[in-house]
Amino acid sequence: MNRAEITLHPIGVIHSEHVVARQTPIQPVYAKGCRGWVELFPEYADGLHDLEGFSHIYLLFHFNQAGPVQLIVKPFLQDTARGVFSTRAPCRPNGIGLSIVELVGREGNVLLLEGVDILDGTPLLDIKPYTAKFDRIETSRNGWQDEVEEETAHRLGRREYKNGDRLA
Amino acid sequence: MNRAEITLHPIGVIHSEHVVARQTPIQPVYAKGCRGWVELFPEYADGLHDLEGFSHIYLLFHFNQAGPVQLIVKPFLQDTARGVFSTRAPCRPNGIGLSIVELVGREGNVLLLEGVDILDGTPLLDIKPYTAKFDRIETSRNGWQDEVEEETAHRLGRREYKNGDRLA
Repeated sequence: MNRAEITLHPIGVIHSEHVVARQTPIQPVYAKGCRGWVELFPEYADGLHDLEGFSHIYLLFHFNQAGPVQLIVKPFLQDTARGVFSTRAPCRPNGIGLSIVELVGREGNVLLLEGVDILDGTPLLDIKPYTAKFDRIETSRNGWQDEVEEETAHRLGRREYKNGDRLA
Repeated sequence: MNRAEITLHPIGVIHSEHVVARQTPIQPVYAKGCRGWVELFPEYADGLHDLEGFSHIYLLFHFNQAGPVQLIVKPFLQDTARGVFSTRAPCRPNGIGLSIVELVGREGNVLLLEGVDILDGTPLLDIKPYTAKFDRIETSRNGWQDEVEEETAHRLGRREYKNGDRLA
């Protein structure tokens, strides 16, 4: 059984308007209008060729501000304890985050993004193209997410605050 | 600029019928009928609660048999050099793989899967639920993938061989 540890090196940094974890949208679908950018470290810039052809990309990143690992968590959208692997919560083993964002443009080693739900300064681990024929799946069941009412999810998921109070 | 390295620990092992890299389907969409299973290490089993409610899940894993990192690669489906971040090729910085597979069932810390495009023995890093409202994106452009003819992609992408010859 291969339990050898794996060492990763950030390939860049994600920048956004989100500087407080509890005020950061929980998914890109709740982050419409939130701009951000990726600054890829220059030594990786060659790997960005042809990426502009895709309207959406995956960002894989490190939840470097997450708290201790919890195997049972209450997801943000529902007050019920769930196994962490059935949620997108940050406090997961290995702490890898996955967001699908819109790629607005590229300027050298900088990617301009829309729909960013990621904290400013987050270390970037990988970029992959989102491809409809691979990634747009016909699901038959969406687990506990099917129990969450859409309008509530959109209101809570954005996590906007004003003068310290949640806009709700 | 945060370049601190990140250490991950596998949370389990992915098992499949694929034992040779060059004969392994390149995406789940080309791996219909390919069964497999995840064996989660027992200490993480509590994190699997509620996962059965989802018909599809993301597996994040380590491309532990990939060759050296290449920033420019020829993707399997097209004979044109591309930036690695515009492809899903394994020879990428940090070597993290992402597959969306169908979750057929769970028996304790074992997940039964369908549509597995992953080499037998691959170290598992994370499991996330695939949720239609977060992950089923309306793309407007799919880059060079839009140039690949669908029937050719399905025939090549499965990478079936018989007596050493590709079935084509």
